[in-house]
Amino acid sequence: MIRINENYLKLASSYLFSDIAKRVSAFQEANPSREVIRLGIGDVTLPLSPSVIRAFHEGVDEMAQKSTFKGYGPEQGYEFLRNAIAENDFAGCDIKPSEVFVSDGSKCDTGNIQELFSNQLKIGVPDPVYPVYVDTNVMAGRTGNFINGRYEGLYYLESTESNGFIPTPPDHDLDLIYLCFPNNPTGATATREQLAAWVEYARTHKALILFDAAYVAFIRDPNLPKSIFEIPGAKEVALEFRSYSKTAGFTGTRCAYTVIPDECRVYDENGNAHKLNQFWNRRHTTKFNGVSYPVQKAAASIYTEEGAREVKTLVDYYLVNAKLIRESLTAVGYSCTGGDNSPYIWVKSSRPSWDFFDYLLNNAGIVCTPGAGFGRCGEGYIRISAFNSLENVKKAMERFPKE
Amino acid sequence: MIRINENYLKLASSYLFSDIAKRVSAFQEANPSREVIRLGIGDVTLPLSPSVIRAFHEGVDEMAQKSTFKGYGPEQGYEFLRNAIAENDFAGCDIKPSEVFVSDGSKCDTGNIQELFSNQLKIGVPDPVYPVYVDTNVMAGRTGNFINGRYEGLYYLESTESNGFIPTPPDHDLDLIYLCFPNNPTGATATREQLAAWVEYARTHKALILFDAAYVAFIRDPNLPKSIFEIPGAKEVALEFRSYSKTAGFTGTRCAYTVIPDECRVYDENGNAHKLNQFWNRRHTTKFNGVSYPVQKAAASIYTEEGAREVKTLVDYYLVNAKLIRESLTAVGYSCTGGDNSPYIWVKSSRPSWDFFDYLLNNAGIVCTPGAGFGRCGEGYIRISAFNSLENVKKAMERFPKE
Repeated sequence: MIRINENYLKLASSYLFSDIAKRVSAFQEANPSREVIRLGIGDVTLPLSPSVIRAFHEGVDEMAQKSTFKGYGPEQGYEFLRNAIAENDFAGCDIKPSEVFVSDGSKCDTGNIQELFSNQLKIGVPDPVYPVYVDTNVMAGRTGNFINGRYEGLYYLESTESNGFIPTPPDHDLDLIYLCFPNNPTGATATREQLAAWVEYARTHKALILFDAAYVAFIRDPNLPKSIFEIPGAKEVALEFRSYSKTAGFTGTRCAYTVIPDECRVYDENGNAHKLNQFWNRRHTTKFNGVSYPVQKAAASIYTEEGAREVKTLVDYYLVNAKLIRESLTAVGYSCTGGDNSPYIWVKSSRPSWDFFDYLLNNAGIVCTPGAGFGRCGEGYIRISAFNSLENVKKAMERFPKE
Repeated sequence: MIRINENYLKLASSYLFSDIAKRVSAFQEANPSREVIRLGIGDVTLPLSPSVIRAFHEGVDEMAQKSTFKGYGPEQGYEFLRNAIAENDFAGCDIKPSEVFVSDGSKCDTGNIQELFSNQLKIGVPDPVYPVYVDTNVMAGRTGNFINGRYEGLYYLESTESNGFIPTPPDHDLDLIYLCFPNNPTGATATREQLAAWVEYARTHKALILFDAAYVAFIRDPNLPKSIFEIPGAKEVALEFRSYSKTAGFTGTRCAYTVIPDECRVYDENGNAHKLNQFWNRRHTTKFNGVSYPVQKAAASIYTEEGAREVKTLVDYYLVNAKLIRESLTAVGYSCTGGDNSPYIWVKSSRPSWDFFDYLLNNAGIVCTPGAGFGRCGEGYIRISAFNSLENVKKAMERFPKE
């Protein structure tokens, strides 16, 4: 008899954004004439920039000619892209192209990475958290049941007002730690000292940090670290996820990458050290077949001078929105985090998250993401995303009810 | 301490095609003037067809305009593509668009599907076999160690001369069965009766058949079934993998899909039945973010009249090669399977597979795939692929040594 992976039965509910989509559909069906402004899911709205479009077309044209046609490419990504990444995205960190693994999305990479590790681990996940980190560990059987909004067996790193939404290392052992800065959903950013404390913790405990830097392009403060590899000693205890989704508007185009330095170590049951990137390479070559060639060409175009300028303009546009949201909501009495070096604004409310979600939708036609969907510490908060047109953001801010 | 998934340490060796690539590189380095003809890895060589290129460009152009730009799409694929698949690829089988899950490759899908199942399963894998089926189960811990060319704990379905390379259902219990027709690597095709025997077995044993039809476009014999869903009762006990890689030359473009009928059932530890496609949907939405929009547009173009004619021309071209290979090798004394309704020719040799691989490379500059790389029953065979230019195939056949 074909038996299911019982861990799937533990999953608390359907995926957060599907739930939101259902409520929005129901609202629109009931109120066909009402205009809805979506500041919920973090999805870009501006089209791909001219250099990206040009390179994308060129890639397609190469696929049309026998002499330039590309069949299977290297699973890890084409050299031209891996070289460009190593050279441009980690200035001063000395990252080698062979340490870069190109993929079709950070959602895939952050979801798949846990396969490489033992099922007997003490795992630290932020709360609030991007649900993929948690759900994929539930599916793999690394948790108990879902009780009072949390899975047994996970260690929740609380991000609250009292720690400025930056959890500090605990006073006990963890083996695997998920960190994300600029943070999704809180928009908080970590200082060099805060990251250094985590690196030191990981070195002391022989732990591994999974550092999600999907929103790095939004960092404008020159004092904030852009990569965890800027912290001395991080390469031995951390890997980093990066994505073109938010950096270059690739949410529908699909390209991302993961960096696992040669120095990064994991251990077998006898305590012997192994190079982590060999295992990821094995997974990548066994279960993945590379990113579409024209997409890789398109991604590489952002490393030209013109391409870089263009994608910075895209991010700048959303940062203007983010600033407006933060200032508008602060002006009407809300306490806000994020929105300066990130596209998300984490808004404290006196209502429960889902009540505030419904209230905003029904009274102002605004879609946000209820903080409670990201974990227990998200209760009482909503996430507002700056990914929309300035015009819509202005309109939404005018409609936004006072605290 | 961060502990590795120890199952990765059981993996027998690096991936077959990486091994081949290394030997070919070494040969080319030592013999820079020798021309090498690659009939090894099953990778297409003809460029994308005009309709595909046109639609691909159109998709890219849509990404350049705000009004037509696409951000995150549905993880399961756009409706236009799912509808076209359901309508065109399963004539008479009554497949619904909601049963179709678009992905970036059958390698990913065949590799990822095992996550949905219990670790306590009796698994039947063909021998010889596409290595992904086996390796992904090793990684998940469903096997013991690799001993004498096989993993303990797997049940090997032997495909040999004596059964015409079509294994028959065993006389004992299996829970999960991998089947692939037209077969990779043997090129063998299964009749309706042979598939019906497997469906009956699966129904009796409440087993699940994972049917890999990546090479379906090569079937020209009208009496051969194209989908397992042509067999009555199959929808309750089977899912099917399909790919544009070989159908439309998408190996470097990346698009595929998996069909899981609503009727298909799996069971929990209490014996309760569940719909399998709900679990795949959960995995797909949690760990995957959809296929690049322009790629989906490109894939959909093959369902137009012109697009369909064009991609049939591509497959026809390779079938001419396959016929030539089969006839040429038969003429010089080899016993061959496949090559009529498939792009692969499975060639029996008096030498061990890897010896024959080296012999062919060193003496004729031809790259094949050693049968032993696909399993113990592949020893004494090589796989020749028809994916090359007719000119190169002709040249290779002239050089090919007599048995």
